[in-house]
Amino acid sequence: MKLATLKDGSRDGQLIVVSRDLKTACIANGIAPSLQRALDDWNFIAPQLDELYTRLNAGRAVNSFDFVAEKCMAPLPRAYQWADGSSYVNHVELVRKARNAEMPESFWHDPLMYQGGSDDFIGPCDDIVLASEEWGIDFESEIAVITGDIPMGEKVQYAGEHIRLLMLVNDVSLRNLIPSELAKGFGFFQSKPASSFSPVAVTPDELGEFWKDGKVHLPLRSTWNGNLVGQPNAGVDMVFSFPQLITHLCKTRNARAGTIIGSGTVSNKDASKGFSCIAEKRALEMIATGEPVTPFMRFGDTIKIEMLDKNGKSIFGAIEQSVVETDSVN
Amino acid sequence: MKLATLKDGSRDGQLIVVSRDLKTACIANGIAPSLQRALDDWNFIAPQLDELYTRLNAGRAVNSFDFVAEKCMAPLPRAYQWADGSSYVNHVELVRKARNAEMPESFWHDPLMYQGGSDDFIGPCDDIVLASEEWGIDFESEIAVITGDIPMGEKVQYAGEHIRLLMLVNDVSLRNLIPSELAKGFGFFQSKPASSFSPVAVTPDELGEFWKDGKVHLPLRSTWNGNLVGQPNAGVDMVFSFPQLITHLCKTRNARAGTIIGSGTVSNKDASKGFSCIAEKRALEMIATGEPVTPFMRFGDTIKIEMLDKNGKSIFGAIEQSVVETDSVN
Repeated sequence: MKLATLKDGSRDGQLIVVSRDLKTACIANGIAPSLQRALDDWNFIAPQLDELYTRLNAGRAVNSFDFVAEKCMAPLPRAYQWADGSSYVNHVELVRKARNAEMPESFWHDPLMYQGGSDDFIGPCDDIVLASEEWGIDFESEIAVITGDIPMGEKVQYAGEHIRLLMLVNDVSLRNLIPSELAKGFGFFQSKPASSFSPVAVTPDELGEFWKDGKVHLPLRSTWNGNLVGQPNAGVDMVFSFPQLITHLCKTRNARAGTIIGSGTVSNKDASKGFSCIAEKRALEMIATGEPVTPFMRFGDTIKIEMLDKNGKSIFGAIEQSVVETDSVN
Repeated sequence: MKLATLKDGSRDGQLIVVSRDLKTACIANGIAPSLQRALDDWNFIAPQLDELYTRLNAGRAVNSFDFVAEKCMAPLPRAYQWADGSSYVNHVELVRKARNAEMPESFWHDPLMYQGGSDDFIGPCDDIVLASEEWGIDFESEIAVITGDIPMGEKVQYAGEHIRLLMLVNDVSLRNLIPSELAKGFGFFQSKPASSFSPVAVTPDELGEFWKDGKVHLPLRSTWNGNLVGQPNAGVDMVFSFPQLITHLCKTRNARAGTIIGSGTVSNKDASKGFSCIAEKRALEMIATGEPVTPFMRFGDTIKIEMLDKNGKSIFGAIEQSVVETDSVN
């Protein structure tokens, strides 16, 4: 099943069901007004949405219309929790190596995870509005899951059962603000502005054989200013699976329906697969030549993030955004 | 105006208006079902709630009933954002001094702020359920504001206008998990389980002359196992006012209606005012004798957090909780 949220002027938007080929959609009339409401009562609502999805794919849905990603908000335009892991430890090691910082061995078995702002997500094709290029604007291409309710202390063997939907994320990062924020120990805060998500959230069964062991085994494609700069396989070198990230999150607390958990920047040890964020490219340059040469994003830059199935068809639709300067800064 | 959220089996509870003396309440029938919905459209909804509040205080509200804090959820049982500052820098300095760590001078002008989990808040009289005393269970008594929409880059002189409501918070902390979490730089994460809030949220005008310069100028009382252990004045030694915390939060992003911002543990330089968290008491012992002697909370311990007006009447109602052991741990 594929779900999206249409811009309708409201804060939570209008839940729609999207066809498997992303060509048509229909409003989930009389089922649930918003994705959060569907997640709040998933076991009752999901079968009804799924039935509509079947009709839509068969061309039998009443009042279906063309699906247009630009008209979408993030599947959850606002969420009660956004916790982002850092599962591709290779990425962490590289970035640290570039600044001559050793990575603690514990990072290989104790996940890094930070709490992100979740009140104001950006739509898949909306601008990334920021005040200054000096902040070191970077994209980060990731996978994320949306969960149901999870009890505190959930065991890893049951954790995967709470995964309701999958999405792609652009976890926008402000590289030049990160060092001073992390030095405080309190997390990224100002260095992580609003994130954007793929037009469509999909149930795990949509990935078929490529959803295995709590990981997505397909390449994640990042295209920066029209050039494909990365296509690492999200199932390779992911040290912590989504069920492992869930148990980390829930060690000392419950997580409630609509929780979004991110994988961290997808990264393969095989450097020929390219990069999913500029920081990693710069780290490789730093290690090779002692100097990073690739600049961070400039106003006007574009970023496209997408995942294709084995037939080359887009699964989630594409995140496709421009970086734009705001003129209201304090 | 005073607002609260009644337990009704739903995730967001039932919005109620509470009388100034906290004795009676009535359901905000036909106005707004939940506090979040009221915040989403505050300028339209708040005057209607205020009119009901006036009738309730005059004893003219239809279907009013006795107000019982135990029947309340947190005013926002789940929120889209919970960002907690650390405005009482004295507290930070003390805790660091106790472990022989110097505090960077920048902490006096650049606020510390972390993103907390906001999907599963605890009601004011609900148990604090945790798996292990070994985690070093501590309370933290704080003030918090709930805001409306705030644009990115908002200026400090306008920031205060976005404050809709004030509450008290118990920002429960797991002291023995903090060092390893902060060492990662990614924030408190596992060391900050679910927070609890006062039964009632109040508009700033309810504080009268005691709401000034974006600070609450009244003592915050913490009673641990029946003993009053702290009553520092929340208006004293608060280095960053709430408007300043808001501008910090919004430097690189918007904040949306229902954002909760915390003051950090209230702490006065005058040690005779006592403490608002055990860590501070232990820090003072460490500095004085080289050894902390006060243990953290044990299962069965109670904590009461309250603020009284100049006539000794409770403003927000009391947070009044027990620490309880869970038996489901992974």
